[in-house]
Amino acid sequence: MFELLKTIDSPVDLRALHIAALGSLADELRTFILRSVAKTGGHLSANLGTVELSIALHYVFDTPNDRVVWDVGHQAYAHKILTGRRDAMANIRQLGGISGFPRRGESEFDTFGTAHSSTSISAALGMALAAHNQSQPRHCIAVIGDGAITGGMAYEAMNHAGSFKDLPLLVIFNDNDMSISPPVGALRKYFGKLKQVKGSGTDGAFFKALGFDYTGPIDGHNLDELLTALHALKKRRGPQLLHIVTEKGHGYTPAAADPVLYHGPGKFDPTHGIDPPVAGKLTYTQVFGDWLCAEAKADKRVVAITPAMREGSGLVEFERRFPDRFFDVGIAEQHAVTFAAGLAADGLKPVVAIYSTFLQRAYDQLIHDIAIQNLPVVFAIDRAGIVGADGATHTGAFDIAHLRCIPNLTVMAPADEDECRQMLHSALLLKGPSAVRYPRGSGNGITVSQALHALPVGKGEIRRISAQPVGYRIALLAFGSMLRSALEAAEVFDATVANMRFIKPLDGALVEQLARDHDLLVTIEEGCVMGGVGSACLERLATVDHSPPVLQLGFSDRFIEHGAPEQLLSMCGLDAPGITRSIEAFLSTHDMELSNNRSATADVSLRARA
Amino acid sequence: MFELLKTIDSPVDLRALHIAALGSLADELRTFILRSVAKTGGHLSANLGTVELSIALHYVFDTPNDRVVWDVGHQAYAHKILTGRRDAMANIRQLGGISGFPRRGESEFDTFGTAHSSTSISAALGMALAAHNQSQPRHCIAVIGDGAITGGMAYEAMNHAGSFKDLPLLVIFNDNDMSISPPVGALRKYFGKLKQVKGSGTDGAFFKALGFDYTGPIDGHNLDELLTALHALKKRRGPQLLHIVTEKGHGYTPAAADPVLYHGPGKFDPTHGIDPPVAGKLTYTQVFGDWLCAEAKADKRVVAITPAMREGSGLVEFERRFPDRFFDVGIAEQHAVTFAAGLAADGLKPVVAIYSTFLQRAYDQLIHDIAIQNLPVVFAIDRAGIVGADGATHTGAFDIAHLRCIPNLTVMAPADEDECRQMLHSALLLKGPSAVRYPRGSGNGITVSQALHALPVGKGEIRRISAQPVGYRIALLAFGSMLRSALEAAEVFDATVANMRFIKPLDGALVEQLARDHDLLVTIEEGCVMGGVGSACLERLATVDHSPPVLQLGFSDRFIEHGAPEQLLSMCGLDAPGITRSIEAFLSTHDMELSNNRSATADVSLRARA
Repeated sequence: MFELLKTIDSPVDLRALHIAALGSLADELRTFILRSVAKTGGHLSANLGTVELSIALHYVFDTPNDRVVWDVGHQAYAHKILTGRRDAMANIRQLGGISGFPRRGESEFDTFGTAHSSTSISAALGMALAAHNQSQPRHCIAVIGDGAITGGMAYEAMNHAGSFKDLPLLVIFNDNDMSISPPVGALRKYFGKLKQVKGSGTDGAFFKALGFDYTGPIDGHNLDELLTALHALKKRRGPQLLHIVTEKGHGYTPAAADPVLYHGPGKFDPTHGIDPPVAGKLTYTQVFGDWLCAEAKADKRVVAITPAMREGSGLVEFERRFPDRFFDVGIAEQHAVTFAAGLAADGLKPVVAIYSTFLQRAYDQLIHDIAIQNLPVVFAIDRAGIVGADGATHTGAFDIAHLRCIPNLTVMAPADEDECRQMLHSALLLKGPSAVRYPRGSGNGITVSQALHALPVGKGEIRRISAQPVGYRIALLAFGSMLRSALEAAEVFDATVANMRFIKPLDGALVEQLARDHDLLVTIEEGCVMGGVGSACLERLATVDHSPPVLQLGFSDRFIEHGAPEQLLSMCGLDAPGITRSIEAFLSTHDMELSNNRSATADVSLRARA
Repeated sequence: MFELLKTIDSPVDLRALHIAALGSLADELRTFILRSVAKTGGHLSANLGTVELSIALHYVFDTPNDRVVWDVGHQAYAHKILTGRRDAMANIRQLGGISGFPRRGESEFDTFGTAHSSTSISAALGMALAAHNQSQPRHCIAVIGDGAITGGMAYEAMNHAGSFKDLPLLVIFNDNDMSISPPVGALRKYFGKLKQVKGSGTDGAFFKALGFDYTGPIDGHNLDELLTALHALKKRRGPQLLHIVTEKGHGYTPAAADPVLYHGPGKFDPTHGIDPPVAGKLTYTQVFGDWLCAEAKADKRVVAITPAMREGSGLVEFERRFPDRFFDVGIAEQHAVTFAAGLAADGLKPVVAIYSTFLQRAYDQLIHDIAIQNLPVVFAIDRAGIVGADGATHTGAFDIAHLRCIPNLTVMAPADEDECRQMLHSALLLKGPSAVRYPRGSGNGITVSQALHALPVGKGEIRRISAQPVGYRIALLAFGSMLRSALEAAEVFDATVANMRFIKPLDGALVEQLARDHDLLVTIEEGCVMGGVGSACLERLATVDHSPPVLQLGFSDRFIEHGAPEQLLSMCGLDAPGITRSIEAFLSTHDMELSNNRSATADVSLRARA
């Protein structure tokens, strides 16, 4: 088992193999990936598609001196295995294990960290010019898929790269006719036409216009074709584009038949494939999808926009029921947002479904095209907070901080699934732009009311009242997903708990009231502390006389690595024990103390501040 | 004079003219624009290039029912004049006057506000689909230049639009072979080739790949050609692209000869053109350009990147002296930043020169490609704060709030020109990413030392010490450009003044010290209060016992309109009188008061808080 693969600890070992052995190596590698991902979960379809390419690249090019940048990077498992991380695959995407994406700190072969789409050509061009300016002979190679190449920055990069006529820059266009979802847009048809003339003399006019020499299309699972093409391209100068045709899930029938299902599975048994999902707690994503269908049924003006995240954002059913009102714009966040502005400008009610971390791609469009014009667009921000296995690049850490400074925008965070639905409904009723940010995964599992009723804008609610006397009262100001842990921690201190609901407009009156009646405020949010909504509370209290101290809980000033969500939340101190510890630590360093009687209904004493 | 033009108060009047009169109208319109801009300042070259196009569009199409979106929008003066704003041109870009850009609130003919580049196709597509879904017959037209079309979101939009085969969507590609600076990139050559076959049968393969039918190129100053083409295209369905060739500055020889100089002039005498600049105070932009040349001379690894803002960012001299180390990447902020990351990943020291408001376009790239990887890229952020005539779309209001939440990033704000140079130098020495944000225009006019010495990271300095007794002391914490006004206002209250210098890492020790020794802190920043650096001070003090109240001065939670910078700064309360007023108001509402003796060295009394 894995006779050949076991001998490959680096590309040097690979390059020592006879060319005739590479086919067998590809077979072993594919089996290894399948078994490995079946055990750990992770990205599958994309990685089964790049087995031969990974072998060919490391065989032909002098890595790591030559630079390979894997766009998106979820297709780099074969690359990781061939570059000394075969055993490390057992812990991929787990806390302390290797990342699911290329990562500079992890290996010298990971020349550039990726995860968000469409960055590879920019990075490779930068590296090529850095080599040129330092007179280092070096090939720089970007591997980019047909989904990622529709992202605007890939085009910007090609237009720029196309004007350097001597650089050894190679773009490998990995065309599997798939994004995570099926690809969209006009270019898909164009690429399809190129593939029809396979082997013959198309000049790839589109790429030629961008200054690239076009080669292909070739079969990306045929090692002979790959090696021949790469050897030839290695000798050429100026921006080269090699069009390879691959199949997502190649070599594993269930994945090839349904690459979307096998895009990023959890653990499964490869002999009989992924089990049908067991009905469990609703995810926030599902709550969103159900809500949107209900609104769309009631109001023909409601339309949905996703930048290539139909499945991830819960829009499969919406598309099925309202195909003319569903717009998958491709991996194109900037366009998605301004397109939504255009729809709203002429009377529709667009809902943009987007992950927190990808909204960063459209920050300017949100300000410039939506907020300045005060257009009624709803942002349904999924994956706001901890995401787990995808790690730092996907964590929704910054949306509260970067959104709440934008005028005209209303921002909400639901404490549970039902509130999520009501907040989305409230958002849709507003005359200006709004955002509802909700976390990855499930909430409490509470029943979601089908009725739609709007929440009062800018109003929080008190969920628990401290029975402690003045001088000993703590109030927890929980935002969104943090309410549950806050309620749990509150039992320890007999604290008041507010479900703040609105990030903007903040319920400043409630904040002031809590400040008046308590001796310590604790703000809790699933997002960065710096500039977060805890700071909004501070802003409100900055000029209020005799405000109590405020302890701000949230993400500290560092990027959050990959791991299980509950591990990460715990490491951030945002589960109930963590919140409890932070409060205790605060009390002990601030000349306050708890009474000895600590229980669920504890008589908690804070010594009044001196 | 303006016999015809005077009769045109709306496109209805225009459409009543005989076609033979349109040439004369164009002449009048061009003269009107020239005289108007010469009197008010504003955008000239671009507007002289779109005279015939504006007439033709409103003549052929049924505006405002048909929608015209002007990309960037600084070429829409003729459109404004033809749509009822002829007289209003006298106050364009002035406080209370009309905007220099299209603006929905200003006219029903301004269907979509623009200013940042490359948004028009997204917006027009959104409008076209809104019309389609509501069964409204309507043409939607985007006018986009050859600079703007290289922005990634224009490509994203074309790829999306190209898949709708029945929409009445027209993109007018206004090719004048100019961005603000000369255009860059491979497509420029491609467009040049298209123009060589003028009149004959190119199929515009690039646009065809994106799903557009290509027509052209035609002469955009020839009304007959324009009208014929527009009439023909009006009858066609599916995404259409009309390639028109125009000349920036057309009809006014000095502007046609030097469209960069005449891009956005101040007032000038049209009979002899723009006077050579009088040597005045250095601008921050010049300080940056000079500094970068000095660093580049000393270290070959220093390279400069601009997204199409060579002149605006002060890089003309740098390009002249270091052409191989100067990278104008086109209007492509996303690529600019990830490209810089690629350069830094392989050993260069990239400096990205970018306006605050345009950095919003690359927010994700800054986080994902630079900060997570902790790459040493310097951001020289120009136009941070009030910008003046360009208004809300160009105001650098949010950079402090959206940058300071990013881990690994160092952010500085210089109080004067000399400090700007030293901060840039300090930034270049750091091992991780950094940003120096400085305002538009000039500073104090102080001499800039040529020596380069690094500032201690995270340290502010005290510039004035209050002589007031405990209970009566005010401290002003000034960030960057606000120091000068703070020092002036401090005289009124005999306040302590700190030049804080670092937004991140904040000099928390200094903040705490000032809090200990004073009875009121006032933070002053040229940026939004919400989430700004004043809030960083609050975060630092949140858990400190007995902190004094903190008054946060900066931009309130609304967008800042166009006007003269000093007017706007005053309206924001950020000049010395405004700061003084705010402090007085605070004292009067917070049970504190000044003594009667108010003078430059006043004996100021704060009644101690109860």
